[in-house]
Amino acid sequence: MFPKNAWYVACMPDEIDAAPLSRKICNETIVLYRNGEQQAVALEDFCPHRGAPLSLGKVVDGKLVCGYHGLEMGCDGKTVSMPGQRVRGFPPIRAYPVIERHGFVWIWPGTGAPTALPALAWADNPEWAYGGGLFHIQCDYRLMVDNLMDLTHETYVHASSIGQKEIDEAPVTTRVNGDEVITSRYMENVNAPPFWRMALRGNGLPDDQRVDRWQVCHFTPPSNVLIEVGVALAGNGGQDAPAQLKASSIVVDFITPETETSIHYFWGMARNFRPDDQALTASIREGQGRIFSEDLEMLERQQRNLLAHPERKLLMLNIDAGGVQSRRVIDRLLLAERAAAEGAAADAAAAEGVTA
Amino acid sequence: MFPKNAWYVACMPDEIDAAPLSRKICNETIVLYRNGEQQAVALEDFCPHRGAPLSLGKVVDGKLVCGYHGLEMGCDGKTVSMPGQRVRGFPPIRAYPVIERHGFVWIWPGTGAPTALPALAWADNPEWAYGGGLFHIQCDYRLMVDNLMDLTHETYVHASSIGQKEIDEAPVTTRVNGDEVITSRYMENVNAPPFWRMALRGNGLPDDQRVDRWQVCHFTPPSNVLIEVGVALAGNGGQDAPAQLKASSIVVDFITPETETSIHYFWGMARNFRPDDQALTASIREGQGRIFSEDLEMLERQQRNLLAHPERKLLMLNIDAGGVQSRRVIDRLLLAERAAAEGAAADAAAAEGVTA
Amino acid sequence: MFPKNAWYVACMPDEIDAAPLSRKICNETIVLYRNGEQQAVALEDFCPHRGAPLSLGKVVDGKLVCGYHGLEMGCDGKTVSMPGQRVRGFPPIRAYPVIERHGFVWIWPGTGAPTALPALAWADNPEWAYGGGLFHIQCDYRLMVDNLMDLTHETYVHASSIGQKEIDEAPVTTRVNGDEVITSRYMENVNAPPFWRMALRGNGLPDDQRVDRWQVCHFTPPSNVLIEVGVALAGNGGQDAPAQLKASSIVVDFITPETETSIHYFWGMARNFRPDDQALTASIREGQGRIFSEDLEMLERQQRNLLAHPERKLLMLNIDAGGVQSRRVIDRLLLAERAAAEGAAADAAAAEGVTA
Repeated sequence: MFPKNAWYVACMPDEIDAAPLSRKICNETIVLYRNGEQQAVALEDFCPHRGAPLSLGKVVDGKLVCGYHGLEMGCDGKTVSMPGQRVRGFPPIRAYPVIERHGFVWIWPGTGAPTALPALAWADNPEWAYGGGLFHIQCDYRLMVDNLMDLTHETYVHASSIGQKEIDEAPVTTRVNGDEVITSRYMENVNAPPFWRMALRGNGLPDDQRVDRWQVCHFTPPSNVLIEVGVALAGNGGQDAPAQLKASSIVVDFITPETETSIHYFWGMARNFRPDDQALTASIREGQGRIFSEDLEMLERQQRNLLAHPERKLLMLNIDAGGVQSRRVIDRLLLAERAAAEGAAADAAAAEGVTA
Repeated sequence: MFPKNAWYVACMPDEIDAAPLSRKICNETIVLYRNGEQQAVALEDFCPHRGAPLSLGKVVDGKLVCGYHGLEMGCDGKTVSMPGQRVRGFPPIRAYPVIERHGFVWIWPGTGAPTALPALAWADNPEWAYGGGLFHIQCDYRLMVDNLMDLTHETYVHASSIGQKEIDEAPVTTRVNGDEVITSRYMENVNAPPFWRMALRGNGLPDDQRVDRWQVCHFTPPSNVLIEVGVALAGNGGQDAPAQLKASSIVVDFITPETETSIHYFWGMARNFRPDDQALTASIREGQGRIFSEDLEMLERQQRNLLAHPERKLLMLNIDAGGVQSRRVIDRLLLAERAAAEGAAADAAAAEGVTA
Repeated sequence: MFPKNAWYVACMPDEIDAAPLSRKICNETIVLYRNGEQQAVALEDFCPHRGAPLSLGKVVDGKLVCGYHGLEMGCDGKTVSMPGQRVRGFPPIRAYPVIERHGFVWIWPGTGAPTALPALAWADNPEWAYGGGLFHIQCDYRLMVDNLMDLTHETYVHASSIGQKEIDEAPVTTRVNGDEVITSRYMENVNAPPFWRMALRGNGLPDDQRVDRWQVCHFTPPSNVLIEVGVALAGNGGQDAPAQLKASSIVVDFITPETETSIHYFWGMARNFRPDDQALTASIREGQGRIFSEDLEMLERQQRNLLAHPERKLLMLNIDAGGVQSRRVIDRLLLAERAAAEGAAADAAAAEGVTA
């Protein structure tokens, strides 16, 4: 159960530069490619001729040519031509709204009218740098949201990099602001764990002094989690300290459901210090990738445990409030989506003059 | 859905020379081996004692000995002996009609009376040479028939070897002759693609001249496709040109259903030039194997697409006529097979004196 | 279908020395570890907080700490503590009775009151040595019992090591003694097969003389098979010959169902000659492991055959009597277990004052 009328990250831009890409998103099998204007296009990955996957074909002059019998498909899902055939009567396939922006290719899998893309203040801003990656994980997208909205797990899953005992001990605050859920935790006068010592050095700061540390998780629908994280030399205002006294960044998490129990997880980190230092970007990316990969086995085995025990009620503790509130937002969207679908069906019936 | 009262290729002769072979054919798990006279035998792969697969045993003096407890099975499916046991009351297992001929081992999986084997003019003829191989493919056998009865796919799937633009452009003719479906395409005064240039050189002909090219596909039930293919130096009568002015051969395709969605695909090429040139046979076989392997991913992913979208109607264009007509022949056989089974059931009821 | 109110081998002791172990036993997913007193503990592998597998955590001061959010679980299945939480209301998870004895860790997966562990005369006895291993096999545990209670298969499956024609030819006797089933076979004045020649040499005896050989299989519930095996120099009393004239041992087989169609198979050999010769222990273990691995493919493919043909009746010959009688004991236990469960349910209903 995932909202379909929402923008999801479909792929990284460079995944479709060389050849069409087949990717299942929200249970739909989709082919992504670039048209003649180099714009990203998303269609059903299903040739109307004989059901071949269009993703096995290639792009010729901006048109996707089926690799089986040469049908040329247009960006709107209508067949353009096929050798020796008249194609006017060919049934169209679905074309999905797509936008390439903020360094990602976004797709709208639903049939409702697309809304505005989320604003990402740091993207397209030369004072920020971004590095990230993509994991395929066999779990419900909501388990990943839970994971990111409750960072106490860092103490246990990521003990050697970003975990520290004080995370557990610092109180956590969760509030809801419309469709946004915010969970914050502040730790004052603590030792910086290894990842943050690396980041301090990366920003030209000493790595052996006490710091103030913060984590502010923002969930927005359908399943985006942006986390303001950082450390400042202790006693300088924490998150509000001057830029030259802190290392701060935004952990970026876009979770795209593949099926009910698998996801494409686009993770990364945006930082506004030394944005041009590509070696630093690479080093942060490598460290973050290693850290985030530690969650995979836990999430996949948690998912298997839950599938094997559907009758079990899980606990919802204070630390789980971020995930619990995020799921409430998701449930509200799912309900609205269902109501809209039923309304549309009723309108259609009325338009046909059905009277009981 | 496949006809069971039909001859299918079960294996290549050398697959059972050294040891028993287990193979699933038309959903039946079968063991194939050679008896004392070196004749091929096919039985259910199920020991009547404890259900062990007989194919894990070995052949001793022409009898298949179960590898678990030594039961000796006869070629007729009746137990011959077992150490320390009287075997008269042991239930028989099924024995299938088998013929080794034309360089293949053929099996009749149905319970109806076997008909004559198909005649293969080129087989057992010293003027012809044959080379081929076996692929296991996860698709309905009819998708493979479609593939072979519509060679326009060569332009796209096999672009670098036997494909050429003129295949698409040349009109195709399909006719039905009883249970046989014939699809023909002729291309005049074209350049020979790489595979055929190799074949021309193999027959001592120049490879840089224009040629006339032909493709005549013959479907016969249950799922045999023989394709007359070749090129002749242009303007010498095409397919009817004298032998020394052409390179021609027969593409041999025997498709044996394993399950509803998987096949054993026996492919090869028979040629009547330089039949004794074994290096040429090997070179053609290697080239054909490489080319035919290009179809595998397409067929398997097409199958998965069709399973995911059972509601979709596929198009049936003129180029698809060969496959469409072949499926009609298959449907007719399936219907006849079902009617015969129902008739037999009614006869059996009548014989028991059932009166309503 | 397996009895759950029974002691099964859960693991070898050293499997839980370094870290928690996750193992499915009788369809229950279980975590095994050592507590502060180094005693083996078995719990459901399911954290009551969010369903994470506890086996991904670690043991700290004898308590199992969940690797996701730090919940500390007690050996009784009750949560001990969790950072920042009151845990009194946390639902308990199941704790299973466990005993470490005789060189194995035993578990009682049922809810009935545990009975006494089976006595193993040879274990914990310095005159005996033991070596063994663990195989995972995809078959019903009863197929493994059948296999061990009918050693005629040695002639065919283990022809090059312990098989010999005389096994087939020697009559077999099966008797039932309460819940114990005993199958015996004696072969007089035969050649020793290779494994036993190795064992004779290992005991300082000549390996080129005729021997008397014996096999006495003891099945006890739920699925333990101990087999007295050996050879004595011929004419010295066989199994009763003086120790210095024979090589004898006990084949040890503990079969623990994982699911309905898979097992953890703990196999080994206990011997009472040269118990301190560790090189001999290793050599016997290596030889037995190689021999026993020959059964794996047979058992797994037999299982697949039986699943594909549930309608087939298997034969029950005299050689199968050991397995047949063992299955009767198992069926009796299953019936008693079901009756007890129904009785408990009726008692519970009566206690609630239900009157019809």
